[in-house]
Formats: sequence, C-alpha cells, structure tokens
Amino acid sequence: MPGIDDVARLAGVSTATVSRALSGNGPVSERTRSRVAEVAASLGYVVSSDASSLASGRTRNIGIVVPHLNRWFFTSVIEGAERALLRRGYDLTLYNLSGDDGERRRVFDHHLLRNRVDAVIAVALALDGEEVGRLLSLGKPIAGVGGPLPGASAVTIDDVALGRLATDHLLALGHRRIAYIGGSEQWDLEFHTPTKRRIGYESALRDAGLDPDPGRSRGADFTIPGGHAAAMELLADPGDRPTAIFAASDEMAIGCILAARELGLSVPEDLSVIGVDDHHLADFFGLTTIAQHPELQGEEAVELLLRSVERGRRRPGARTTAATAPRPAVADDEPVTVPVAVDLVVRSSTAPPAPVSVPGHASAQPTPAHPALSLDSPNER
Amino acid sequence: MPGIDDVARLAGVSTATVSRALSGNGPVSERTRSRVAEVAASLGYVVSSDASSLASGRTRNIGIVVPHLNRWFFTSVIEGAERALLRRGYDLTLYNLSGDDGERRRVFDHHLLRNRVDAVIAVALALDGEEVGRLLSLGKPIAGVGGPLPGASAVTIDDVALGRLATDHLLALGHRRIAYIGGSEQWDLEFHTPTKRRIGYESALRDAGLDPDPGRSRGADFTIPGGHAAAMELLADPGDRPTAIFAASDEMAIGCILAARELGLSVPEDLSVIGVDDHHLADFFGLTTIAQHPELQGEEAVELLLRSVERGRRRPGARTTAATAPRPAVADDEPVTVPVAVDLVVRSSTAPPAPVSVPGHASAQPTPAHPALSLDSPNER
Repeated sequence: MPGIDDVARLAGVSTATVSRALSGNGPVSERTRSRVAEVAASLGYVVSSDASSLASGRTRNIGIVVPHLNRWFFTSVIEGAERALLRRGYDLTLYNLSGDDGERRRVFDHHLLRNRVDAVIAVALALDGEEVGRLLSLGKPIAGVGGPLPGASAVTIDDVALGRLATDHLLALGHRRIAYIGGSEQWDLEFHTPTKRRIGYESALRDAGLDPDPGRSRGADFTIPGGHAAAMELLADPGDRPTAIFAASDEMAIGCILAARELGLSVPEDLSVIGVDDHHLADFFGLTTIAQHPELQGEEAVELLLRSVERGRRRPGARTTAATAPRPAVADDEPVTVPVAVDLVVRSSTAPPAPVSVPGHASAQPTPAHPALSLDSPNER
Repeated sequence: MPGIDDVARLAGVSTATVSRALSGNGPVSERTRSRVAEVAASLGYVVSSDASSLASGRTRNIGIVVPHLNRWFFTSVIEGAERALLRRGYDLTLYNLSGDDGERRRVFDHHLLRNRVDAVIAVALALDGEEVGRLLSLGKPIAGVGGPLPGASAVTIDDVALGRLATDHLLALGHRRIAYIGGSEQWDLEFHTPTKRRIGYESALRDAGLDPDPGRSRGADFTIPGGHAAAMELLADPGDRPTAIFAASDEMAIGCILAARELGLSVPEDLSVIGVDDHHLADFFGLTTIAQHPELQGEEAVELLLRSVERGRRRPGARTTAATAPRPAVADDEPVTVPVAVDLVVRSSTAPPAPVSVPGHASAQPTPAHPALSLDSPNER
C-alpha cells in the first residue's frame, strides 16, 4: 500500500509538497505538481478527499445553481467559473433547476446543505432571504450573478446603463422610430433584467426628446423564435415600421434579422438591429451588440467567493459539521457588489436609417450628422 | 446543538429514517423525506456528508467530463444526466475541458482521483486505456456517451445506421444529387462520428446504385457558420448543384438553409436539407432531422453507472481510501453497451426534387414514386 512517504521519496520532494501538490492547498510550481502527480499515478497513490477535507474543514468544491442549462448565457457563466475553479484546484458541482418545481426545493433543502460545497454561485436566481440565510448560517458564502441577493455578494452589470448605451447608439445614427423587444412576464420574475434594460431605453429616448411608444415594445422569451415572432409583429405595418430594433438578447436580435429577411427588408439598409450578449453567433450575423462578458462574470464570482472561503476562520484540524461550523463564518464579510463593464461592439447590422420617401414629398428626409443635436420633431414617429 | 435524535423525535420517525431521508441512501417516501427535511431545516440540523460518505464508502456524486460546454449536444447530455441524478439524490460535478490542454491532464491526474466521485461519465471523449484503467482500478465505474471506451461501458447510437436513415429518406423522395457535410479532421479525432455517418451515407447511395462523389462532400465544424460556408461551396455552381444536403448536425443544416436563402434558393423546392440532432431550433427552421435524444443518452449513462455503483461490494462502515478501496471493485461488471434508438423527424425542409429542366430536352424528368426500384442511370449526377 503506497503512502505519501513513497511518493515524496520517488518524486524527490517533501511530504508537505506532495500534500500541497495533490490537494491543491497551497502554492506549488506547475512542474513540481506535474512530477508529483505522475509519481503518485504510477504508484496508485491518491489523496483521500475525505481526509483532506476533514483536516481543512473545506471541500474545495463550489456549487453553482442555474435556472436553465441549454442557454448561452448560463453555459458561458459556468464555463468562466469552471475554468477559474480548475486553475485553483477546486471542483464545480452543478445544480440545474430547469426541471419540475420540486428541484429547487430539493437543491436548497437538501443538496446544498450536505456540507459538500464551500460556497454557492446562484446565476439569475432571485433567492429569498431564507434561502440565503440558511446557507450563510452554515458558513457558506454566496455570490449572485445576474442580480443582487438579499444579504449576499453579487457580480452584476448595469442593465439600465446597458439599455441607454444600445439606444444611444441607434439615436446617434439618426434613428427616431426605435422599437424594443424585452422579456415576457415570466422572464421578468427573477431579476427584472428586461425591465431595467427597457428603463434605459426609455430614458435615452426621453433625453433625446422622444416619447417612448408602448406600441413599439414587445415581450418575448430571449430565443431566436421569440425574437422572430415579436419582430414580425413590429414590422407588420409597412406604413409605420420602426427603422431600428433594440432586442434585449442577441438570440432575439438574430430572430429580428431573420424576420426582416423574410419580409424582404435589408439589414441595416431598411432596419438596424442591436442586441445584448455578444453571443457566439453574433459575428456570423454581423450583429451589433452590447457585450456583457458572462465568462468574466463567472470568473469574478469565483474570485469573490474564494477570497471569502480562504479567509474563513476555520480552525485547522477541526472537523466541520453543521453543528460545529463557526456559525456566522462570514458574518464579518460585508456583502459586496462587483460590477462588470459592458462594451458596445459595432458590426454591420446598424447604420443610419435610409432616407424616408414620403408619398407626396419630392425629396427624402436627410439624415442629420449629429441627430441628437439637430432634432426638430421630438415626437416624430 | 441539534442532533439526529431531535430531528427524529420532532418528525415522528426513527433515526434510521432521518438518515435515509437526508442522505438519499435507501428508500423513503417523498412525503417523509419532505417532512424530515423541513424539520431538519427548522432545527438547523444538516447531515455531514463527510460522516455519511465515510460510513457508506460512497460520495453520492458523479463526475461528468465534456470537451465543450456551450454546445447543444453536450449541455443536453448533462441536462439528462443531472435530472436523473437529482431524482436519486446524487450530485453532479462538472469537468469541462474546453480550455487549454493542461486541463485534461489536471482532471484525469488529479481531480477525478481525489475520491470525490463514485463514477465518471465521459461525453464524446476517446479516453485511452490508461485513463480508463486508472479510474477502474480505484473502483470508479465509467460510462462513455458518444462512443465506446476501452474496457468500459457506453451509451451509443448507431451512427452508420443514422447516416443510412437520413440518406434513404432523401433517396426515397427521388433525390440523386445528394451532398454530405460531415466533420473536419479535428472533429473526427475522438469518436469518428462524422466518418461513421458518412459511411452510412455512402453505403445508402451505393445500395441505390449511385457512386458517392467526393466532390459533393465537405468537412465543417458542426456549427451554423461552418455549415453555411460548406453549403456556399456546394451550391456555388448553378449547373451542378446538389438537390439535397445531408448535414451531420442540425446546426450545420441550419447553416445550409441560411446559405440557400442567401442564394435565392427555396427550401425544400430547390434544395432539401436534413440534419442530425433534433436541436431546439430545428422546429423553428422546419428542419427534417434524425433525433438522437442526447438527454436520454445522459439518463441512460446515469442508470448504467448507478447500477454498477450500488451493487459495488463495499463493506458497510469501512472507510474508503485509494489504498483500502477494493481494487477491482467492478471487475465482475462486464462492460456493456446500451444502444439509444434514433428517429427520423420529418418537417418541411425535405421534399421531392423539383423537375429538372435540361436545356435541349422538352420535358422535365419525372420523379419516380419508388426511385430506388426504378433507377435507370445509377451514375447520374
């Protein structure tokens, strides 16, 4: 039965180094880690995570809870978090709540409380005070991604500013008839992201002297088919078409581009489209978008949690159970909010609106170079 | 400090029932489980997974290793596996290898060997004999999804039969000029899925008396942009266009539909397109496809592994470490292969080819009702 001494002797390092290399606890060079792992593998020696976690009081495992898996935003957050955790020698345990309603209860009443995870990332889930409180009382820090949580830290983007940024881009190009596709009611239940983006859109319009028109606003489900259906409605009346659409996700924006093509409209000549995400298909469709860097959001959540976990006041050697865990292990950690910046990525789906040919008028309306500064008819539709 | 006795007394059940309810080990009704969980939560009592896993020798956690995360097939397999595990009270720990090459080594040399997981699912990864052998020698069963593994069990679909099924559908509609978009070299490195689908395509053509034309075959990367680029090449010459394309994934097939639209071709009038997957966008694009049910593949992998884990000959109460784990814990488990059936799903993207108007010929070529039976010109292109 090979022991840690055998590994240390063959690898030519101390047992402490073997322990650090195999547990991921503490600094060790990549070369040493690799040599120790090879020797350990050749001997069939494996560190026991039971023993390791009993000694440190930590599992070196982070739980991530998502409402859906098969959507670009969620998988991108997970990719970022998983990569950051792997670099630090942590595991990631995934809880996907896309099934029946019972899953959320099972996960929060049972799985997350089994002392399997050191901390929890909740993506686009508005946990209630009890769900957050129970985890914190067990000494498990929580970070929200996609919105604030009561009493917990969060990585967020400024969705109102994002809505303004997208709308200002269209306004600066000279657009006045700008439609918005946000989230349907069920999509707004958690963090009100679609509503916040819409508030930014509306305030940008008002600042440009335009009244937001409720008839130019639609709710959809953040998918390509949902965006397509909403755009077909918005573009149905050739006499009163918007010249630009701001969609609250790239998938909905791609649905708009496909709808425009079906109607024989050119993008961007007849219709400008801007989305949110910088989805991996955005480049293919030439989509102008607001990049929100979900992988970075996942990484930032990991950094936030690991700082909290690693300064947690666990007594070395003390066995951690629910009962003996220092109650408010992170009570001195004030919840913090880490903002992630968003960026405008201009591609080919946005351009100045085509000159309008109005029946009975001889000449088309010119596009002002700085439209926001030379606006004559603020309520023009 | 609340103990298991307090929970048992308040819930009105035995301590053994509390243990079963909270650990997920052993049968307990959903109602009892729910009541025990509520009482435990109200008291702040949580089962220690350390203690629980020391007693049972199991972690009730399954590792899943995927080469990519942000792709429909992989997330669908994970969704199916995760849902099946959650139902059984298991956790799922995710290892995504889409980063640098070092990740695969770190995961197989280190993370998977830490005794954190009872078993491993490898999705579309051709593990080598050493990677499989090391896990098996630690008593960790492995199941492959997407292809066989040396010495391990697998959930598979018959990719050759799938290729035949898709091609036979096009042949039965009367198509003769049928192109294929498979995988580029890097996509064929692991399980040769694209090559197997192509073998099915070619053998179906040969059985119909047609010679496969290498000029009608392209490799791509299983994405919409990749399928689009391949289709633009295949459709470039109006005088020698295929009347149908079989793409080895729905995303590539959607790329074909978009390419056809850009070229002013109607689907299915001018071009039939069939894919593989039954991707969540297939319905929106009216795509005929071969459904391969990846969620079911994930569930089947879980069933396969849990049967193996739960009949594993662990001595109750024995602490499991690398050294004391029964060496060939599943040596008496012969590797099995669980086939998952695929289905043809006919939507609107496939139809009989349009009558060909050949210059100098007065009448168009009729479409035979049973083309395979009335074929006159086997090498027609």
